[in-house]
Amino acid sequence: MCKNGISKATLSRIPIYLELLKELPQERYEYLSATTIARKLSLGEVQVRKDLAAISGTGKPRLGYLTSELVENLENSLGCNNYTLAVLVGAGKLGKALLDYDEFEKFGIKIAAAFDSNDKEISITGKIKVKPINEFDDFCKDNNVQLGIITVGSGSAQAVCDKMVQCGIVAILNFAPCKLNVPDGVILENENLALSLAYLNNQINKFK
Amino acid sequence: MCKNGISKATLSRIPIYLELLKELPQERYEYLSATTIARKLSLGEVQVRKDLAAISGTGKPRLGYLTSELVENLENSLGCNNYTLAVLVGAGKLGKALLDYDEFEKFGIKIAAAFDSNDKEISITGKIKVKPINEFDDFCKDNNVQLGIITVGSGSAQAVCDKMVQCGIVAILNFAPCKLNVPDGVILENENLALSLAYLNNQINKFK
Repeated sequence: MCKNGISKATLSRIPIYLELLKELPQERYEYLSATTIARKLSLGEVQVRKDLAAISGTGKPRLGYLTSELVENLENSLGCNNYTLAVLVGAGKLGKALLDYDEFEKFGIKIAAAFDSNDKEISITGKIKVKPINEFDDFCKDNNVQLGIITVGSGSAQAVCDKMVQCGIVAILNFAPCKLNVPDGVILENENLALSLAYLNNQINKFK
Repeated sequence: MCKNGISKATLSRIPIYLELLKELPQERYEYLSATTIARKLSLGEVQVRKDLAAISGTGKPRLGYLTSELVENLENSLGCNNYTLAVLVGAGKLGKALLDYDEFEKFGIKIAAAFDSNDKEISITGKIKVKPINEFDDFCKDNNVQLGIITVGSGSAQAVCDKMVQCGIVAILNFAPCKLNVPDGVILENENLALSLAYLNNQINKFK
């Protein structure tokens, strides 16, 4: 079963649930209730109940979830147990910060390569190769890449976006602070790094 | 009027509304309706109507919003027209990428200084000074800093968080991939840079 259409908030907690479930001795915890999981993670019970219901149904009355099945469903909801490959274009400060970030794998995603127009030769940032941009097309097609991350400036973001679409990428995460156009069938998500801080600022202004 | 408690999604569009409103000649657009704004920005009318209602009430029947008042209310909702000062601790790759990022000011926030334990002397990244961490306490207290950004690794994030709280910071944005504890009265927001890509991955798996 590959559950989909879950919310971003629920998604954010899946690695936390998985970490806990894999730590617990399976022989002692054949079944686990939302209540137990909530207590062990200091999370709200209603929230955990809702998350697990979205991912793995309602569980068995009185017993809760069969742990092995819950693990499987949690893993499936991160991408049906296969790593999805992503590429990144723009190996500036932000791009390099993302290449160093090791949270992607917890969500079943592997950044397979990064590309930059300034790189004439292959260089290494952390564990990932930064390649010259003229190798982009072949790499994406050869590896059937589906996810793209744009970390170039606003001026070249649309050109990079078009290139990604041409190479078969179906979902794009854009960090450039500009509006991009994608054709139908391609999903675009814009990431505004200032937004969470703006939200906090709005919250503290409530009390002024 | 300083409207608060608006959603993150609404907040993300405020700079876009403000940019449009400031571009339009005020003498021609004394009043503006949600419909006109939606059309000019290629946004959904229901969405714009909801955003503006949250920020500036319902407007006048048939006329819409008095443009000058709407601008004021939009600006107020970004922090009551005063820049809020923020500090950043951890001037590694991600920290430096954020210091370069010029979207904060659009939301009424100024990163006033950055701090790093590796810096013995003041250095400059972009427009912002990176100072040695032992100057942190005095800087925060002297400047009445309220917002803190944590871009250190998981190992030192809690210590940095505690330091921020001691220095009077009331809202903290944490980029370290770990759980932090803050006392009551301090707001903490965790930013997971992998989450949006994980969400996209989940979306494309729907169609497999």
